[in-house]
Amino acid sequence: MYNNKGLLIVISGPSGAGKGTVCRELLSHSDCNLELSVSATTRKPREGETEGVSYFFKEQEQFLRMIEEDAFIEYARVYDHYYGTPKEYVISKLEEGKDVILEIDVQGAMKVKKYFQDAVYIFIMPPSFEELKNRIIRRGTESAKDIKKRMRNAYEEICSVGNYDYVVLNDDVKAAASKISCVLTAEKCRLKRCKVDVNQYKEE
Amino acid sequence: MYNNKGLLIVISGPSGAGKGTVCRELLSHSDCNLELSVSATTRKPREGETEGVSYFFKEQEQFLRMIEEDAFIEYARVYDHYYGTPKEYVISKLEEGKDVILEIDVQGAMKVKKYFQDAVYIFIMPPSFEELKNRIIRRGTESAKDIKKRMRNAYEEICSVGNYDYVVLNDDVKAAASKISCVLTAEKCRLKRCKVDVNQYKEE
Repeated sequence: MYNNKGLLIVISGPSGAGKGTVCRELLSHSDCNLELSVSATTRKPREGETEGVSYFFKEQEQFLRMIEEDAFIEYARVYDHYYGTPKEYVISKLEEGKDVILEIDVQGAMKVKKYFQDAVYIFIMPPSFEELKNRIIRRGTESAKDIKKRMRNAYEEICSVGNYDYVVLNDDVKAAASKISCVLTAEKCRLKRCKVDVNQYKEE
Repeated sequence: MYNNKGLLIVISGPSGAGKGTVCRELLSHSDCNLELSVSATTRKPREGETEGVSYFFKEQEQFLRMIEEDAFIEYARVYDHYYGTPKEYVISKLEEGKDVILEIDVQGAMKVKKYFQDAVYIFIMPPSFEELKNRIIRRGTESAKDIKKRMRNAYEEICSVGNYDYVVLNDDVKAAASKISCVLTAEKCRLKRCKVDVNQYKEE
């Protein structure tokens, strides 16, 4: 009755919300059916990063060709480098029946939504203004001007929460991951995702 | 951010699906925030039944007056007795912030839906035709004709699954209760049920 195809779970939110930590917690506790989507990038691998695990590392020429071939669900240029979500990778995992987590910023998430209307869109909300500010400061931004700018960006990103299906307050990483895990279980039971064959219950 | 009002969870399905067993399992494991709705009835208390716990026992005259006063979310006459879901009881529990489970047949559930559009509607599906038949037989119906009639009724009830938000296969009572528990957690994170105040994240 339940669908065999995997579920695409888009986890988004402002920088400083703790998306990455929540996703790692979720992956560490859940069964092997859950996978994190791997992005492609033109930046060079850092120490300890593995091809196909951390990223798919591409030359700029390759990446641009992939853009032309419409091989990305979404991509963005951040300063000198490109980052993108390879369409084929995500689709093949879903077809295999794996649930795929896409951890992505709000701009990226909205591009994904154009492509995957039936994915599950979850917004991670920072617990408070103060905690958001602390996290942004801890990330190593120094000047008060920079902090102000990042806080303004975070606020603008938070304003896009209305585009999501679920909102999870990240006041506790374990609790937030557990809520997302429940969202996955619940979504699989949603009528629209199930194939119910009522005729099997019909007496001849 | 999460709503303080309780959630109404309507658990329905054909007779023989195991609604009652799943609800008992759910209540035995969940926190004290979950309550089973108590019905009113005109039938006499059986041994061991307690007023306000098993049922609200009413005289027929009282019950008919309550119908006139529109005091029921839904009610039905089954042979010689009336059964109904008291509106005030459910609403006051929800206002207190308690989640209320309403275990009800499909006809009743559809009446509730007219009143509570934002409740969560869960359909419990029997694991198979054979198991449904076994359960109906175990309930003590004897003649083949009766069994046939009950199976036909169950099939008709199953055909109303399209009116529900979620469908939970009851192939294992613990697993089914755990899925419903996740549906509750997930529904509380749904954007439409949350009060998100984005302005608290705005830098002055």
